[in-house]
Amino acid sequence: MKKTITLLFTVLVGYAQAQNADSVTIRKIYNEALANGKSYDWLRYLTKQIGPRLSGSAGAQKAVDWTKQVMEKEGFDRVFLQDVMVPYWVRGAKEEAYIRIGKQKTTVPIAALGGSVATGPKGVEAGVIEVKSFPELRELGPDKVKGKIVFFNRPMDPTKINTFEAYGGAVDQRANGATEAAKLGAVGAIVRSMTNIHDDNPHVGGMRYGTGVPLIPTAAISTNGADLLSKSLAENPGLMFYFKQNCESLPDAKSYNVVGEIKGSEKPDEIIVVGGHLDSWDLAEGAHDDGAGCVQSIEVLRIMKVLGIRPKRTIRAVMFMNEENGLRGGVQYADLAKKNNEKHIAAVESDNGGFTPRGFGIVGTPDQRAKVMPWKPLLAPYGLLEIGAGGGGADIGPLAQSGTVLFGFKPDSQRYFDYHHTTIDKFETVSQRELELGAASMAALVYLLDQHGL
Amino acid sequence: MKKTITLLFTVLVGYAQAQNADSVTIRKIYNEALANGKSYDWLRYLTKQIGPRLSGSAGAQKAVDWTKQVMEKEGFDRVFLQDVMVPYWVRGAKEEAYIRIGKQKTTVPIAALGGSVATGPKGVEAGVIEVKSFPELRELGPDKVKGKIVFFNRPMDPTKINTFEAYGGAVDQRANGATEAAKLGAVGAIVRSMTNIHDDNPHVGGMRYGTGVPLIPTAAISTNGADLLSKSLAENPGLMFYFKQNCESLPDAKSYNVVGEIKGSEKPDEIIVVGGHLDSWDLAEGAHDDGAGCVQSIEVLRIMKVLGIRPKRTIRAVMFMNEENGLRGGVQYADLAKKNNEKHIAAVESDNGGFTPRGFGIVGTPDQRAKVMPWKPLLAPYGLLEIGAGGGGADIGPLAQSGTVLFGFKPDSQRYFDYHHTTIDKFETVSQRELELGAASMAALVYLLDQHGL
Repeated sequence: MKKTITLLFTVLVGYAQAQNADSVTIRKIYNEALANGKSYDWLRYLTKQIGPRLSGSAGAQKAVDWTKQVMEKEGFDRVFLQDVMVPYWVRGAKEEAYIRIGKQKTTVPIAALGGSVATGPKGVEAGVIEVKSFPELRELGPDKVKGKIVFFNRPMDPTKINTFEAYGGAVDQRANGATEAAKLGAVGAIVRSMTNIHDDNPHVGGMRYGTGVPLIPTAAISTNGADLLSKSLAENPGLMFYFKQNCESLPDAKSYNVVGEIKGSEKPDEIIVVGGHLDSWDLAEGAHDDGAGCVQSIEVLRIMKVLGIRPKRTIRAVMFMNEENGLRGGVQYADLAKKNNEKHIAAVESDNGGFTPRGFGIVGTPDQRAKVMPWKPLLAPYGLLEIGAGGGGADIGPLAQSGTVLFGFKPDSQRYFDYHHTTIDKFETVSQRELELGAASMAALVYLLDQHGL
Repeated sequence: MKKTITLLFTVLVGYAQAQNADSVTIRKIYNEALANGKSYDWLRYLTKQIGPRLSGSAGAQKAVDWTKQVMEKEGFDRVFLQDVMVPYWVRGAKEEAYIRIGKQKTTVPIAALGGSVATGPKGVEAGVIEVKSFPELRELGPDKVKGKIVFFNRPMDPTKINTFEAYGGAVDQRANGATEAAKLGAVGAIVRSMTNIHDDNPHVGGMRYGTGVPLIPTAAISTNGADLLSKSLAENPGLMFYFKQNCESLPDAKSYNVVGEIKGSEKPDEIIVVGGHLDSWDLAEGAHDDGAGCVQSIEVLRIMKVLGIRPKRTIRAVMFMNEENGLRGGVQYADLAKKNNEKHIAAVESDNGGFTPRGFGIVGTPDQRAKVMPWKPLLAPYGLLEIGAGGGGADIGPLAQSGTVLFGFKPDSQRYFDYHHTTIDKFETVSQRELELGAASMAALVYLLDQHGL
């Protein structure tokens, strides 16, 4: 009995000492990020000097070259590119759109959805059918839809506390609206922007065409524009809507994932990834989506290096290419990992904006999640209170097939869709402290994953 | 034994049913705030139509009249004013300041601290002594300080996770700097602005003179200005600093607390207060500080009324006057409560900005705090995870003497001091959802306090 107590005591003391050492290191990580952090200056350069960087564009290439240089300058053990062929869609000249009632035309702000076809040089004019859902559309049937523009106007649900849930409940309209409308003979699809606020910015985003249906042009309309169109339709059901867009899908282009690495000292073959995506929509500086995630990921490695934390395992910062309209970078990264027999024990992604940290969502087995729970008291002092099962991240998603445990960094979600996929997703909307706290939170998690495994 | 089990079962079922009913009501409260909330429109009016409202000013009086009208229009059971005499300090013409090295003058942004005396029409020019703390100043002694301007330049500590802690660690310079400098014969005191960011806005705030020392003029300098002054001093210790300010303390003015009330149906003599302060600094629209707290407090009562929640106890929304430079409204409210033998069981204040909710700080006995703990699962789905001992609020503070339990609404603190006490504390910096979530969080707490007491 005495022996057991002694053993238990030794184990408990050992555990307490380990927790204490972790606690001291995590405090140092936050101090470094908040007092000497580089993520904010990096984000300024990426958004203001490089700017929009849709896959295939000159901006995307500049971002590849620059992030590679930044990581080389920080002296990481290895910095390299992974080739990946990406879709190359271009918007062309700015879109035009108006509501026409008789001779009276009222301009409304629209923007072509990524992947859409053009309208042709004359544009498209047609009557409008407003619907809130696909079942409602199908009920109308081809007789009422043929030759019309379908207007998808179901708002994001403002009562969802997490705005990503509200987004998930509305984004089918953007992704598949054109296909569902085309099935019934529509000539175009106009989709209410995915945001809770009332503004004049079209919020763009990706869409895809189903097979075997005509490719009809589709665009996002600002929420104020959508409200106006809906009101106008109620008063004048016979009004006409005109829109012209000039977008085009060019042949796939060569691009890259950018990877920086600190080699593990004990288990170099076990890899922990921390990443974000380097591409942004063409209209946006991509500050929150996802410049923030990229600079935070580089900052994680910089902090470890400058604090002299020599990781046991290999830590990689990955700037994935093409999350927005293809996910080719994420797929390519996982394919190469498999081909090269790399063992990725965990991957952390930041792609929900550079907002104040709330926690992490974990994609893994209950046993794997249980291994993370003892770390909660170490992270709680930093506001990381929401740690549990949840989403990982689009780019790291393909790694799950090989058993990698995924962690989605979870910042506060309230403002994300104010800026998402618009011209106002700008550097100025990012709070330096919120960005830096995010970087420190990711570094703390990566440190714990490295120290204790999974 | 069987009886005991049956009894236990009945109690547990009853408890679960009560929690379930609370959970349903709280969900309705959030839905109402997020789908039909009025707080954001009210805040727009208060900041954009009324604007700055320092105690004694015409703006403050307009805010009194308007909030009274708003609450009357909402049909609360009773809306009334409480007279209170308030300090009446005015800034006068805009300040001027420059660093002079020989004949070269470099302008820097300053603003007189609230309560400061003027410099006189010719301003003050003197050499500068830079210090980081009062002990450092005292060590220099009168020989080095006499005839000089003391420059207090200790920054807020960026490594504090909660920015209010960093503020608490630096604000002595603003509050008492002039007094400490005057004791040693200084002719002026310039104080680094209380913010973590690097900007060109002087962040003002209150100061007070000690008794028996000369009243020397004191002003806040922007953080960029402070950095420039510090750098210039390192290079040219003999530089001169000039500043002119034209502020004045006028005789106390009559003003008001504004109170709206819903009468309790079972225990009308037990009062629960929810409030914020109506006054703001003269340079600011006072959106976060503290227009947000005012409109949220009115919204709490509106939500209860529109949802048909007839409270057991009397619920009051109180717009306190003069938090910024005197706290007279808060003191007056507590004095009247005592005089009128009113029993205030709890008071909730929102004065930390209209940011995304994190929780509540409680000032009460351990037993009182323990009564709140079973509510945690009801509030957790709304991101209210930080509930425990903590600060209440300046305005409700004086109620504590009579045993009222105080609750400080705790929104995320990261951006508060970016805007605090400056011209950029504007409506545009408030997120509608964050503001509304705060109002709903306060309403949920007030509902639970009313239902279950303390």
